[in-house]
Order: sequence, then structure tokens, then C-alpha cells
Amino acid sequence: MNSSTPYKRLEERFRRLSLIGDALSFLHWDWATVMPAGGAGGRSDQFAALEAIQHAILTDAETGDLLAAAEDEDGLDTWQAANLGEMRRARDHAAALPGDLVEAQVKAGAACETAWRQARPRDDFRAVKAPLSRVLELVRQAAAAKAEKLDLPPYDALLDQYEPAARSADIDRLFGELEEFLPGFLGEVLERQAAQTRPLTPEGPFPVEQQRALGVRLMEVLGFDFAHGRLDVSHHPFCGGTPEDLRITTRYEEGDFSSSLMAILHETGHALYDRGLPARWRGQPVGEARGMSIHESQSLLIEMQVCRGADFLAFAAPLMAEAFAGSGPAWTAENLTRLNTRVAPGHIRIDADEVTYPAHVILRYGLEKAMVLGGLEVGDLPGAWNDGMERLLGLRPPTDGEGCLQDIHWFEGIFGYFPSYTLGAASAAQIFAAAKLGDPTIAPAIGQGDFAPLLGWLGDNIHAKASLLSTRDLLKEATGRPLALDAFKAHLKARYLA
Amino acid sequence: MNSSTPYKRLEERFRRLSLIGDALSFLHWDWATVMPAGGAGGRSDQFAALEAIQHAILTDAETGDLLAAAEDEDGLDTWQAANLGEMRRARDHAAALPGDLVEAQVKAGAACETAWRQARPRDDFRAVKAPLSRVLELVRQAAAAKAEKLDLPPYDALLDQYEPAARSADIDRLFGELEEFLPGFLGEVLERQAAQTRPLTPEGPFPVEQQRALGVRLMEVLGFDFAHGRLDVSHHPFCGGTPEDLRITTRYEEGDFSSSLMAILHETGHALYDRGLPARWRGQPVGEARGMSIHESQSLLIEMQVCRGADFLAFAAPLMAEAFAGSGPAWTAENLTRLNTRVAPGHIRIDADEVTYPAHVILRYGLEKAMVLGGLEVGDLPGAWNDGMERLLGLRPPTDGEGCLQDIHWFEGIFGYFPSYTLGAASAAQIFAAAKLGDPTIAPAIGQGDFAPLLGWLGDNIHAKASLLSTRDLLKEATGRPLALDAFKAHLKARYLA
Repeated sequence: MNSSTPYKRLEERFRRLSLIGDALSFLHWDWATVMPAGGAGGRSDQFAALEAIQHAILTDAETGDLLAAAEDEDGLDTWQAANLGEMRRARDHAAALPGDLVEAQVKAGAACETAWRQARPRDDFRAVKAPLSRVLELVRQAAAAKAEKLDLPPYDALLDQYEPAARSADIDRLFGELEEFLPGFLGEVLERQAAQTRPLTPEGPFPVEQQRALGVRLMEVLGFDFAHGRLDVSHHPFCGGTPEDLRITTRYEEGDFSSSLMAILHETGHALYDRGLPARWRGQPVGEARGMSIHESQSLLIEMQVCRGADFLAFAAPLMAEAFAGSGPAWTAENLTRLNTRVAPGHIRIDADEVTYPAHVILRYGLEKAMVLGGLEVGDLPGAWNDGMERLLGLRPPTDGEGCLQDIHWFEGIFGYFPSYTLGAASAAQIFAAAKLGDPTIAPAIGQGDFAPLLGWLGDNIHAKASLLSTRDLLKEATGRPLALDAFKAHLKARYLA
Repeated sequence: MNSSTPYKRLEERFRRLSLIGDALSFLHWDWATVMPAGGAGGRSDQFAALEAIQHAILTDAETGDLLAAAEDEDGLDTWQAANLGEMRRARDHAAALPGDLVEAQVKAGAACETAWRQARPRDDFRAVKAPLSRVLELVRQAAAAKAEKLDLPPYDALLDQYEPAARSADIDRLFGELEEFLPGFLGEVLERQAAQTRPLTPEGPFPVEQQRALGVRLMEVLGFDFAHGRLDVSHHPFCGGTPEDLRITTRYEEGDFSSSLMAILHETGHALYDRGLPARWRGQPVGEARGMSIHESQSLLIEMQVCRGADFLAFAAPLMAEAFAGSGPAWTAENLTRLNTRVAPGHIRIDADEVTYPAHVILRYGLEKAMVLGGLEVGDLPGAWNDGMERLLGLRPPTDGEGCLQDIHWFEGIFGYFPSYTLGAASAAQIFAAAKLGDPTIAPAIGQGDFAPLLGWLGDNIHAKASLLSTRDLLKEATGRPLALDAFKAHLKARYLA
């Protein structure tokens, strides 16, 4: 195929789009980690300008003509055909939105995120009410425009951006099944836990420098390559950057090393996925991660399935004790495993254990669907949040900081993303079960601090596939079936009731 | 004027160009300060993509049509007319170069800079020979293309990018006058210095954290606002970012706090200029700094004219002593002033005193002119460099690391920039003399650590003017005459021979 075919010209265009996306990713890292407060206004203008350029390239007539011509082209191989499909997907999503709406969304999101950063520590919901209302107004416009173009219900049209081909009807069903299963299960777990002695909490303080050194050491054990990435600090942990330069963040508390460390291991799971994407397809849509639930499956597989498990902690407990010069019964692998799988209903999603986590997601899913579809306005959000928490977990948040102000997502304009966390948790269980079945050396190797067998299996079956297959087919090829809750439930029962 | 006039539409285009430039500036900061080595390839692709987009916007037919139409528009005020002139300038420079040449230059520059970063500490000129030859080949192509379009000699066409309207014939004359003045003057200074007792060098080590704290404290004294900027570490000190978010860097040596601190104060001078540019014209060409010699005049005014002078050091010496718990005769203002104005011919430009600095610039100016015009090839550079150093300063560099590998400029593709340093030094002297004449409170206030009168005068006469006037007219309005060497020579005589 010579370089002038429509398909090849599309590859050039999408490579440029990808490079702009890479630039945006580093600018976002900078914003979250090092930018002084006074840079916020300019930065949001930079975001808006670069996203507007992406939008213009994706939606211009030439891209449309090239897509139409490439779709008639013969001789594309499987990857190229899948790449073309992903290009079409990106184009249809982008073309559904007028450029000024996109630019307005980026600006409103940045302004609202800035307001949220100040409002959250002060529990000041009123300070975000106006900027969040503006964000929601634009989200509704975007949802309506996409719904029309993609012939989907408005919430599904947003969901589809993060979770290609996912539909709220399926999520309603899966989440319904979880809502049936979890309350009874949680009761059993809490009852059993109450009958046991309480695990001991290692005594701090745990100096930040030592926490960081331990994090770096375990990242290296997991296979993170610091020639291609960094570990820094931000308010909300994330993994950004590019496959060649992955930027992981966490936040430290001197009184507790575990939550920061688990955040590091979680983000390392994301990073290992990105790093394992096929270099051959770098910069093309088909070379990107499959979607948010698969991405989250990789972080949760590492954090929840592996690093909070007894096998890994048998290896890691001595390293933790060494890092903080700890000794005694609080530092045994058995005690640390019980600590790291302690179940306790609480207000904060990112601190939640894996048993109560789905309740947090189910709450947010319901609220964001109602906000997008018009059944809930921003002014009523705190009340609806608190009522939902009471219904789902029997807790009423004492402040909005511990309630509807806790997550960044809505305040930066992201609606339709929350379901991915629980879809990811269920996928992680299903994938890890298949991996251990496929390679019986995986679990014992983890107990020795050797992640090569696990990474080998994930590399072949998940990472290297990138976006070649749909989420459904990727899971089917890797695990033998589409997403179901059996493996997740079996994992929870084995870990918490066995 | 309604928003649809050609001029107004050009303002929108140039605002977008400026935002892409801002993004590039932060990506460059990231590259130089925090990026892991493995990110270099991707980053150079990101640079190339964003610069190609800038180039495409600047050179497309619509920008040309809008410029032609705006140039026929009535009713533009003085600033708008100057803005339009700067737009035309930017367009003519960009349109002289085909897009693929620009992209090739960015890539070759990034590759060569990466090679240089490894080659310099190893004194390995051979390792940069090929990438620098490639850079020079493209620079010559660019110079030829610009020369034709702008009707200038090739070297002048490059010079004009950094130093609008500067011509090598004028620089030849000024530098010739300096070459006549300096050798005799240097001899007198060295003779006088030899007759005095040697100043005492404060004894280290000076821990990096304390050096940084002192730097921050003095930056604040000078008026740097940390809500709008940062201080970090890089191999080569620079000031980047944007007026709202200024990124200064330095490098620390534990054995000597002075060179790092003076680099910080130098870069702070750059930052204060950028911060003082008129907010009303932010994002427009007329709102940018006037050119490189004026920019350098602001950093050298702060570092050389002010911070190495007796007035400032009377204020700062006790803070320096406090920072490092120093006491005794090495820490007196008088001793520190003599140390900070010590003259000593050496190999390294950025460590040079202000008396020998022009020799370093005159050397580079001659060499880069010869390289651009074809009289010097890369393979002959080390020899020509060493011969030039011997002729100008009587020193022969023992290694290329202390010779032609010492500066980053050529290796990142920048030719035509070096004269700005000495034009800036002369301008700094002329501007500071005019400032002290215009406001007699400036010098005594500096002695009290009060920079408000100086910044007020610079703000009104230099910073707030941005690119409204030509460099020549800016200097004429601020100092009463175009650039001459009288003030510089008078300053050197007063400081070193009085």
C-alpha cells in the first residue's frame, strides 16, 4: 500500500491527533503536580486551544472524505481495519459536537475543577454550585447532541466515550445483581470480622521519604521502568503521560503508609497496561487502551486481586517492615493481609474496601444518570447524595467534603465514567481467575516477588491487544466468556468468608 | 470595530498561536527538569507536531488574506497597528520556510540536543558531529530561504528572528569597538586586581536546600511572585513558562553558592520582564517581549548592574551569611562585592565575568556567522574555537567540554542568538544609567532591599511597552539615544578601575 492511500493519510492525521493528546496529558500532569495557582487561568486556555485543534482536525471535511474513501479501500489487514473502525468512532463522537461547545466544556471544566480544589477542603458546596451547574448544562447539551448523532439514549451516548459499546440497560442489570448480592454478603463479612480479633495497625509516623522509597521499590518489583516514568505527588492519585513516559502520582499521610502505597500499586497497574500497548500501533486509535473498564481492570487486578492478597503480602510484608524499621505482630504477613482486606463501610470512595466500593459506584451512577437525563439538578445533589448513602450503606455523610464534593470527576466535566470502576473490578476478578488457570506458575511466582509470569500472560492476552477487539470480545478471548459477576463473587467469597 | 473585521480575526488566530507556544514552553520546561530519559523520543515528536501546527496556521492562505485585508483597514490604534506589524513579521519569517523544513529542524534539533546532553560530560565531540552537521545543513537551508524572502544576507535573516531589525553590519561595528577597548581595559583591571589582596572565598559546603531557600528569599525581595512561578533545577539555567506561570531554573554546586545564586537572580530578571508585559496584550505579538537583547538587558541589569554591585550586596551580604551560618571577614559586603566582581579570563561563557564575557560572544558570533555562510564546517569547529579563544583571551581549552561543547544553543539549532548577550549587556548599562538618572531613589532603595522604585521605572519604560516600539525606538524613548557603548564602558570603568 503506498503512502498516498486514504487509509495511510488517515494514519498521519491520527498520529498528529495523538501527539496533541500526549501534549495535553503532560500539561495535565503539570497542572496537578507542580503548577502554581496563578497558572490555572492560562492553563485552561491552553487546554481549550489544543482540544479545539484536535476537534477541528477530527471533524474537518477532509477527515470525513478520507474516512469514506478508506472504508471503500481493499487490502486492509485486521489491525488496519480495526484502526479504521476506531477512527470512525472517534470522528462520530467528535462530529456530534460543535467546536464552540467543546471549547466551552474544556473551559467550564477547568474553572469548575479550580473552584472544587478550593471548595472541597472547606466543605463549601455553595462555592461550586454555579460552576458545576454550568458544567452540567454543557454536559446535557453534549449528551443530547451525541444521542442524536449516535442514535443512543443521552446517558449512553456519554458512557460510550469511556466504555465503547457499553449500554446502561446492561449496567442496570449487572448493578441490580450486585445490589441483590452485596447487602447480605456485607452483613456476613462484618459478622465474621466482628468475631475475630482486630488486626493490629502498625504504628507511625511513616516519613514521606521512606514511604516514597518503599513505593519505588515495589513499583520496580512490579516491573515499572523509571527510565520511562516518574512517581510524584498530587491531590488525587492518577496515571498520566504516555507509554514512553508514564507519570504516576499518589498522596502521602504520615500516619498511614498503606493507603498511599496501595494507590501507587493501583496506578502502577494502569501504567503497566499503557507500557504494554503495542509499540507498532503507538499513536493510532487501535493502539490505545481498550476502554476505561479494561483499564481499571488492570489497576484493580494489581491492587485488589494481587497486592492486597496473602501471596503478595507474604513477599512484601518484610519489605514494609524494613522500610519503616517495624517489628512485632503488627508487621506479619498475616496481620497485614487482614488489615489490607479489612471491610468497613465508610463515606469516601477511594478509601473503600472492595466489598463496599460497588455501593459508592452504584450511588454515583444513579445520580449522574439522573443529572444528565434532567431528573436531578445541582442544587439537590447534596441531599440526594446523602439519602443514597443512607440507603446503600446505612451512613449519612456529616459534611459535603465527605459527601458529594469528594470526587473530582463531575467537577472536571466527566459524566458517564463512574460505572467503569465496578465493571473494572468484576473484569479484574474474571481476568485474574483466567490467568491463574492459564498459567499455574503465576500465583506462586507472585509469592516470590516475581511478576514476570503474570505480566507475560496479561501482556499477551490484554495489553498487546490494545483496541483490536471490542471489550466484549477481548474478555471472551482472554477468559472464555463476556463479563459476568461469577468470578467477582467467587473472589469475594473466597477472600472474605473462607 | 466589530468582531468580524480582518484585524479582529487575526487577533483570534494569533491568540491560538500564542497558546500553542505556551504549551510548548511548559513541555520544554518538563523536558529540561523532570522528564525521564525514555521520554525524549516522544517529546521531540510532540514538539514537532505542535510547531508544525503553528507553522501551518501562520502560513495558510487565510492568514495571508486576512493580513492583506487588515493592512487596508482604517481605524486601528497605535497598539493595534504595531500588533499588525508584528503579525506580518511573524508571517514573513514563517512563510519563508516550507513546513517540512520546519518539522525537520525541530526533530534534528531535539535529536542533537539529546546527543549533546550525553556528549558534553564525556568531552565527546565526535558523538555530536553527525547530528550537529544535520542541524547546520538545515539551518543553512533555512537561512537561504529567509534571506531570499526577507531580502537580507543569510546570517542577518537568522539574526532578525531573535533581534528584530538588527543587522550584522551594525554588530560588526559595535563588536569591533569592543575588541578595541577590551584587551587594554582587561589588562588594566587584572593589573589593579593583582595589586590588591585577594578576596576571601566563603567556606562550604553549602547544602542545596539552604542555597534554594536563599534563592527563594532573594527572588521574593526582587518581586518574584511564587503564586505565578516556580524555581527548579536543570542542567542549564533558564526562564520559561508564561507571564502567569514563570518557570525559573538553576543548578547547584555544594562547594559554591554564588554562581547558582547569580543564575537565579539573572533568570529572575527575565521573569520580571515577562511578568511586567501588558496583560491587555497577552497572547498577541505586540504583547511579547521586544527581542532577545532587550530580554537579556533585563536579566543582566538585575544580575550584573544591580546584584553584583555594592549597594545590593550591602543589603544581601547579611542574608547570605545567615543562610549558611557564615561569619567573619569572608562574609562582609565589601568582600562579597569584590568576589562577585572578580575578573578572571576562563573557558566557560556562563561563568565569565562581565569584562571577559564579550570575548566569548565575539568568538561565537564569528564562528556561527562563518558556519551559516559556509566558511566553516562542523568538523573544523573545535580547532577554530580553540584558535579563537587563544586570540581573544589567550587561553586554549584543554577539552571540547570546556570548548565548543559548552553551550546548548547550536546543538538545539539556534544560530543568530549569541550577539544578543553582549547587545543586552550594553543595553543593560544604558538602561540602568537612565533609570538612576530618571529616579534618584532607585539606587538607595536597592541598598535597603527595596526594588519597587527600580521595578516601577522598568515597568513604565521597558516592560509595559512590550513590542510597541522597535528595539531602537524603545531604547531611544527610555534612555534618550539608540544603543551605544558609552554607558557600558563607563560602568566597567567605574566598577573596575575607580
